[in-house]
Amino acid sequence: MGSTPPGERPSPTVSAVDIDDLLDEMTLDEKLGQLVGTYVGKMGEEKTVEDATSEIVDDHVGAVSPFGIGISTRDDPTVAAETANRLQRVAVEETRLGIPLLVPVDAVHGHAYIDGATVFPHNLGMAATRNPDLVERGGAVTGAETAATGASLNYGPTADVARDQRWGRVFETYGESSYLCGELAAAEARGLRGDDDDPTLGVTAKHFPAYGQPSRGEDASVVDVSESTFRRTFLPQFERLLDEGVDVVMPCYNALDGEPVHGSERFLTGLLREECGFDGVVTSDWGGVDHLHQYHRTAADRTMAARQSFTAGLDLVSVGGPAYAVELRELVDAEELSERRVDESVRRVLELKATLGLFEDPYVDESAVSDTLAADEHREAALDAARESMTLLKNDDVLPLDESSEVLVTGPNADDLHHQFGGWSVMDDSDLTGITIREGIADVVGEERVSYEPGAGVTEERDVAAAASAAEDADAAVVVLGEDWYLHEFGPQAMNRPTGEFPTRTELDLPDAQRTLLEAVQATGTPTVLVLVSGRPLSIPWAAEHVPGILMAYYPGMDGGTAVAETLFGRHDPSGRLPISVPRSTGHLPTRFDYLRHPTPIGADEHPDSYDPLFAFGHGLSYTEFEVRAFSLSQSSVGPAGTVTAEVTVENVGDRDGERSVDLFVEDVVSSRVTPARQHVGVARATLAAGESTTLSTTVPVERLAVHGRDYERVEPGEFVFHCEGETAELTVTRGRE
Amino acid sequence: MGSTPPGERPSPTVSAVDIDDLLDEMTLDEKLGQLVGTYVGKMGEEKTVEDATSEIVDDHVGAVSPFGIGISTRDDPTVAAETANRLQRVAVEETRLGIPLLVPVDAVHGHAYIDGATVFPHNLGMAATRNPDLVERGGAVTGAETAATGASLNYGPTADVARDQRWGRVFETYGESSYLCGELAAAEARGLRGDDDDPTLGVTAKHFPAYGQPSRGEDASVVDVSESTFRRTFLPQFERLLDEGVDVVMPCYNALDGEPVHGSERFLTGLLREECGFDGVVTSDWGGVDHLHQYHRTAADRTMAARQSFTAGLDLVSVGGPAYAVELRELVDAEELSERRVDESVRRVLELKATLGLFEDPYVDESAVSDTLAADEHREAALDAARESMTLLKNDDVLPLDESSEVLVTGPNADDLHHQFGGWSVMDDSDLTGITIREGIADVVGEERVSYEPGAGVTEERDVAAAASAAEDADAAVVVLGEDWYLHEFGPQAMNRPTGEFPTRTELDLPDAQRTLLEAVQATGTPTVLVLVSGRPLSIPWAAEHVPGILMAYYPGMDGGTAVAETLFGRHDPSGRLPISVPRSTGHLPTRFDYLRHPTPIGADEHPDSYDPLFAFGHGLSYTEFEVRAFSLSQSSVGPAGTVTAEVTVENVGDRDGERSVDLFVEDVVSSRVTPARQHVGVARATLAAGESTTLSTTVPVERLAVHGRDYERVEPGEFVFHCEGETAELTVTRGRE
Repeated sequence: MGSTPPGERPSPTVSAVDIDDLLDEMTLDEKLGQLVGTYVGKMGEEKTVEDATSEIVDDHVGAVSPFGIGISTRDDPTVAAETANRLQRVAVEETRLGIPLLVPVDAVHGHAYIDGATVFPHNLGMAATRNPDLVERGGAVTGAETAATGASLNYGPTADVARDQRWGRVFETYGESSYLCGELAAAEARGLRGDDDDPTLGVTAKHFPAYGQPSRGEDASVVDVSESTFRRTFLPQFERLLDEGVDVVMPCYNALDGEPVHGSERFLTGLLREECGFDGVVTSDWGGVDHLHQYHRTAADRTMAARQSFTAGLDLVSVGGPAYAVELRELVDAEELSERRVDESVRRVLELKATLGLFEDPYVDESAVSDTLAADEHREAALDAARESMTLLKNDDVLPLDESSEVLVTGPNADDLHHQFGGWSVMDDSDLTGITIREGIADVVGEERVSYEPGAGVTEERDVAAAASAAEDADAAVVVLGEDWYLHEFGPQAMNRPTGEFPTRTELDLPDAQRTLLEAVQATGTPTVLVLVSGRPLSIPWAAEHVPGILMAYYPGMDGGTAVAETLFGRHDPSGRLPISVPRSTGHLPTRFDYLRHPTPIGADEHPDSYDPLFAFGHGLSYTEFEVRAFSLSQSSVGPAGTVTAEVTVENVGDRDGERSVDLFVEDVVSSRVTPARQHVGVARATLAAGESTTLSTTVPVERLAVHGRDYERVEPGEFVFHCEGETAELTVTRGRE
Repeated sequence: MGSTPPGERPSPTVSAVDIDDLLDEMTLDEKLGQLVGTYVGKMGEEKTVEDATSEIVDDHVGAVSPFGIGISTRDDPTVAAETANRLQRVAVEETRLGIPLLVPVDAVHGHAYIDGATVFPHNLGMAATRNPDLVERGGAVTGAETAATGASLNYGPTADVARDQRWGRVFETYGESSYLCGELAAAEARGLRGDDDDPTLGVTAKHFPAYGQPSRGEDASVVDVSESTFRRTFLPQFERLLDEGVDVVMPCYNALDGEPVHGSERFLTGLLREECGFDGVVTSDWGGVDHLHQYHRTAADRTMAARQSFTAGLDLVSVGGPAYAVELRELVDAEELSERRVDESVRRVLELKATLGLFEDPYVDESAVSDTLAADEHREAALDAARESMTLLKNDDVLPLDESSEVLVTGPNADDLHHQFGGWSVMDDSDLTGITIREGIADVVGEERVSYEPGAGVTEERDVAAAASAAEDADAAVVVLGEDWYLHEFGPQAMNRPTGEFPTRTELDLPDAQRTLLEAVQATGTPTVLVLVSGRPLSIPWAAEHVPGILMAYYPGMDGGTAVAETLFGRHDPSGRLPISVPRSTGHLPTRFDYLRHPTPIGADEHPDSYDPLFAFGHGLSYTEFEVRAFSLSQSSVGPAGTVTAEVTVENVGDRDGERSVDLFVEDVVSSRVTPARQHVGVARATLAAGESTTLSTTVPVERLAVHGRDYERVEPGEFVFHCEGETAELTVTRGRE
């Protein structure tokens, strides 16, 4: 953490706090206070900084989220730092033991609830880059900005894998590949956390262990999968992230196999602590403990919910506040919760605070905040990420556009930073910092060559005729459609539209108003490009057939407008690859590249393909042309504990510079259990000038080829076929070791 | 079985065959022949009766399906009986040991592959009746007709529960309620099997244990559910059917938790034999063993597939033929399959033949067949079933129609018996016996009052203008839309349209041609009624909003036209209730009444309902009005091993006679595991004259309230709320026993 706030006397620092001594000194109420957190803001009950202060002093509350969280509207960065310091001062100076606070935030794509912070593309776009280094760099920027405001814990990275495109949190994930989710979440954690010996801030693996395939796409509904699918698809990315090292684990809201994870000993102790070996803090997701009695009905009331979750292995009720401390006190008094169990959790919380250096210095330099936020190199990192995320889905000789073109820019997402940011950023949509797509295009071609007509809102028409007319007068039309700002189940209503209107989980196609706009512009005959700013892949069968150019921009963040414009006009060569399949329609769900093999009893001829996306996982075009060849493996046989390195030559045979990533898949020829048609096991990436070639390589631990079953995974000897861009190579896994 | 065929000398009957002696006498090849079946017809390789004869004599094959099966086109009933007798004579007289054949058929809704047999509504319609007695009566008719042709085993009943409306086999199921599937499959088995001491024919529980929720709705794709869902939703109906008593179990094609059931010891031995206590014959579904190497890839080749399935617990390869006997021989020779394991299976097959009386008399009376098939009382049973299945989804004062009306009848399913039968009936669509909807309406109002225009085929328009014009001249328009004949994955192509055209799993809405016809007729202003002849619930949001009358007719079978007409004109009061939810769209899937409770993290206001069907499970209107009141339970508390009886008073307060069924649901207030919002646990039904009232009752074993988890089910003490037609009653389950 930073240095002593200016103008204050140094606080008594505990350079090497003795947790045992501290625990000995603590009263039960002081201990229980460390197991509950509170917030400042309006969520159910509105709480002020003064409320938080009294909860720290009177109720011994040990964690406060005073800013930068899902319920924040707009936080001034310096005020945030002042608030953090003020609350820390209360904890350190006005409580008997002076234990500093934990200050968690939701920095999901940058410290984006703080006004003026760097706003990165959301994770789905980050995953399109196939670039862990870039993700790590983004994490480091976010970590620096987050820590600068006085926060000490981030509720991220998200390691959830998105297995239903209808889900309202798809944009927060690294997509549908468990492998990619694990690698990128680990990279983000490295960046956020910084130096392990002096971490920038604490990081959270969320939402353990399986959240991203809610039944019906409903946020927090059950993830109802078999044990083998659970272990093949949901667990590996958490294992990867836990191996990387995280401080905190946050359980998912939903129930698995009938057990709400917030109250499940099987998942929070058996799986997380015993099997995965995690010894850090388990903190509830907001409301996660109350859900046990409110929704899951595995508890009759809050007391029973508290007992269930702490018995299961929870350490900290993130926003439970004093009310939950009272519940815990009652449970201890009634001997339904042992003080020993309480001590275990308190110890973990105190150890976390010590690890984060809070006992040494919990304060930040308030004067340094504004220089840190959106510093030039920070913003450059976000722009680089946005550039690399750009995924060109279709290009029938329409792109890149000519910079001397007269361009119509239209659509609900053409000139709206709020939509471009997406959820988990300030709710107040005025005075945001960044470049819209309209502005980005004007920067490239000159303001005078750009005409702009909104044409439509997200769900309502707004003078489509004017847009069509302007398209007729233009050399090219850029129609920017998609989704807007939302959280979880496409809410809150106050931020967008009534429940049930787009975006809603039952619809993956564009709403009528947007389709009408697109069709009207396309009908003019003016070369038309569709840009999608969207948190989820949208089913756009009409556009895929009729519109000559389609660019997927995800939620590209503050400088997404620049990235889109540079890509449309060829200043940047698109190299993003879809991290999730684009389904043809909701009737085609699930549409996943790694579907499990199965029979077609009356014949394959009678049976539409099991994977028939509109655009496939890994799809993404370039303006230059690459040849991929000479795919090979480092050896033809290997033992189950070994590794194998795949190599492939990539040559830029076009006449433009470009970037190229490749995905590596493997197919298990025969196995004791049914395996996916293909599994994603590697990525690699190169920047290549025209005419340049290189050899890309990626190393695959053979354990990644394991077969999964009930409570086990094991590598089975036999034949495997690796696939890379249409090339194949075979590997025999032997019975030996390496 | 019947008597000696006329003109033949009596065969040597084995009145009390000694299985031990027989086994001792058998060579290994003779034994292995009992473990494979063959067929006559065209499926992959075409086989004639002569081919089957030589397989019986030379290869010792012990089971033949010579007619009445999924690949039959049209079988003359007397020829079928002659063929059965001829093949039995070969087995009895021309083989060393004279062991009679097992002759299995696919009598799915009547012996419907036999020309002129009674064709019942498919099971989905049967389930709408909520009437186990009627289902049992149907089973008895089918059993009698099937046995009359010389068949000795039916591949049914189907106990699969339909959990994805896109699946191509929804029509074969009793719907989405496990409870209803279990009760009705048991009733069908009772009917089919007849007297347990002298069974009419053998029955098969299929497809064990979980088939009806294939991922994506793809036939035979994985059913990827948690253990608790497996035990709550898929297993109970099989347990019910096994308790009723079946001779044979057929595994499902798909893989569960990574294990293809045809090769899974966990499911075929651990679950089926050890846990469920089944000791009869396990026979493969057609191709089910080959799928292990062809698709699942848990086996490298056919030999490994044979070893895997027999090791798992299979007894009989239904259509494996001599080729599989050779595989088994090789496995025994290589000591990869023990002769003891072979003997176990042979014993089960021989015991089945003995149970069915085949050793006493395997022949049937060929001269009696034609009188048995579609005998008057048989056809009356099918008509009664069709009547009771009629489910009135919507009636804005348009129904019943006046018998003096001039009526336009239009649509692809208005005058097509083949569509009205649905799959699992003769593929050849000429000269079918039955009454179409057009004919049924003409029977009611007189031929002169009916005008008929096809208007559209299933997917193509056919003079919609003519239909609209005829509608303008009519007093009422009956538009009969829906699906046609199909099997499994909406094939075979030779029978309907190319793969991907409706019906297809990605579409639940009507195809454009049918919607165009409906909208054109409705636009005339003539009172319009939509009749759906369909194997699955279709999402018809436009019709649900605009068309005043909607009748769901399922596949109503041979006299479905009469049942529909009687219902439309009020000669019969509709009383069917939906056995499966009608979803609003594919984007709303899964749409199931018993969804699992779950949180809505940012608030229920932001969250569309988890159950929001277009028409709900249990929905169904009547022409009269019923009052349901005084719902009560026989006691307010009960132990976990007890039973509780629910009673409710139903009064026909309208001025027409009618029938009424009620569904009983239960909600578990608090439980250790997440439970469904409601579970279906009972049905009851009454016929009530206008003004009449009665008390309906149904008894629920408390074990039906069990909570399910990994490898267990247990009744938990606590509060339960029963729901019946908006009334509630509470029950406390105590810790005692009863």
